Amino acid sequence: MENEYLTNLKEKIENRLYMLLSPRGRLYDKVVEAANYSVSNGGKRIRPILLLEFYKLCGGDDDCAYNFACALEMIHTYSLIHDDLPSMDNDDYRRGKPSCHKQYGEGMALLAGDGLLTEAFSVAAKTLSLPYERVCKCIEILANNAGFDGMVGGQVIDTECEPTDNVDVLLNMYDLKTSHLIRSASTIGATLAGADDEIIAAADKYGYNLGIAFQLIDDILDTTGDFSKLGKPIGSDEKNDKNTAVKLLGVEKCRELAKEYTENALSALDSIEGDKTVLIEITNKLLARDY
Amino acid sequence: MENEYLTNLKEKIENRLYMLLSPRGRLYDKVVEAANYSVSNGGKRIRPILLLEFYKLCGGDDDCAYNFACALEMIHTYSLIHDDLPSMDNDDYRRGKPSCHKQYGEGMALLAGDGLLTEAFSVAAKTLSLPYERVCKCIEILANNAGFDGMVGGQVIDTECEPTDNVDVLLNMYDLKTSHLIRSASTIGATLAGADDEIIAAADKYGYNLGIAFQLIDDILDTTGDFSKLGKPIGSDEKNDKNTAVKLLGVEKCRELAKEYTENALSALDSIEGDKTVLIEITNKLLARDY
Repeated sequence: MENEYLTNLKEKIENRLYMLLSPRGRLYDKVVEAANYSVSNGGKRIRPILLLEFYKLCGGDDDCAYNFACALEMIHTYSLIHDDLPSMDNDDYRRGKPSCHKQYGEGMALLAGDGLLTEAFSVAAKTLSLPYERVCKCIEILANNAGFDGMVGGQVIDTECEPTDNVDVLLNMYDLKTSHLIRSASTIGATLAGADDEIIAAADKYGYNLGIAFQLIDDILDTTGDFSKLGKPIGSDEKNDKNTAVKLLGVEKCRELAKEYTENALSALDSIEGDKTVLIEITNKLLARDY
Repeated sequence: MENEYLTNLKEKIENRLYMLLSPRGRLYDKVVEAANYSVSNGGKRIRPILLLEFYKLCGGDDDCAYNFACALEMIHTYSLIHDDLPSMDNDDYRRGKPSCHKQYGEGMALLAGDGLLTEAFSVAAKTLSLPYERVCKCIEILANNAGFDGMVGGQVIDTECEPTDNVDVLLNMYDLKTSHLIRSASTIGATLAGADDEIIAAADKYGYNLGIAFQLIDDILDTTGDFSKLGKPIGSDEKNDKNTAVKLLGVEKCRELAKEYTENALSALDSIEGDKTVLIEITNKLLARDY
């Protein structure tokens, strides 16, 4: 991911995030600090980068989409904070540092997540330089992909239901838990830029396939990865008695599948005109990543 | 609260909420059931009623505001679910029934709250029959009042900071924790109806004062109330070592203060033209309530 263009883009997103989460000089500053702790704790910023790249690919040409890019990263971060809590995956580490509740306590981590999720919609709604109709539509897309019929639903299947040994059910869960937020990145980028339905459908197909590939690689790294690169203990899925694609199909078959979904993502891009160099590069690098 | 007009209004709000939270026939249905369990567990529906009444008072004349009314009640309900969790107030009862995590487990309650909060913004964004600009503005108001600089900030001061013995700090916390969501009810109602800034400021002043009075009465009932009416054990604040207005000032002084804030709320209504019978009735009944 480390060419100059992407490094600059990442830095711009991060600076905006830190500004949104700067101290308020109020009694409750600690919760904003806890939120900022998790937001600033590394991360590939894949979702905001994808949102901005789809926005540009579909004709957007200025800074108007940054609020949504930050909102999406704030929602992604809230989901990590809540997912690490003892009543969920009970993970003590995240990207090499203590997870939010290990650092700030459970109550504070709960509230930091709640605040990030809520504030994300305020940030998104403040997109003043684009047509209000598009902003409303994109808030709906964001909430639908993150809510019961998206990420939250996927978390429920992942953590609250009996582990499935049906691969189709598992892939459906990956779609909800992981793809939905990535789908919101690509479709919001396209929708904010005023793209037509066909292009938005292609963006959605890209997000779906990239998301599944992303989760498959995550599963593989949870088995074969390296703590020093991943920043969290290996074998978290095993510890939580989860059935993953790796457990059901083995590492090799999962690698093949991840490659297949990555190719599907790339072919979804074919139906969108324009310079897709950066998107193609990101897509390929996500498949080859070791962290 | 039990005249026919308000009973009908409440029923209409509740039917809309149940429709929004009906089963989806998917693997994650349980989380929607858990959310519905808490949403349908009684409640005065004060916030959505106030939103609709301010909307009508400021000239709105149809069903367009119901989505925001439901969104607000969904956010209120998420806050109760998370507030009852062991890492927060650790309350086993809510309105006479087991709290969400006692009924469905901690992980499920966390996700039910997350889902309600997220879905609220989808419901609000789907307000299609009003100008998109107003809808965006109201989403921002809702998120700001519920987020770090509103309800979440208040929760942090309430549960994560040392109990204060400074009455002003305490009242500031009541404003954040309780008034802010009520302020969003009155100001969203006015804003959706297209009211001017002066009216919106009066609506905000009403919400601020009613919210403080509401919290003072809550504190009094937590000391002097009746389990069978309140539906939760008395003395929860004591149990959690909280400094409340009752503890700092005594019941009598708190009653006086609640009366004063109620009068301030009523006088804020004076600057808005129109039929305020229902709003005045609600305001007075909230002061006299024993549940």
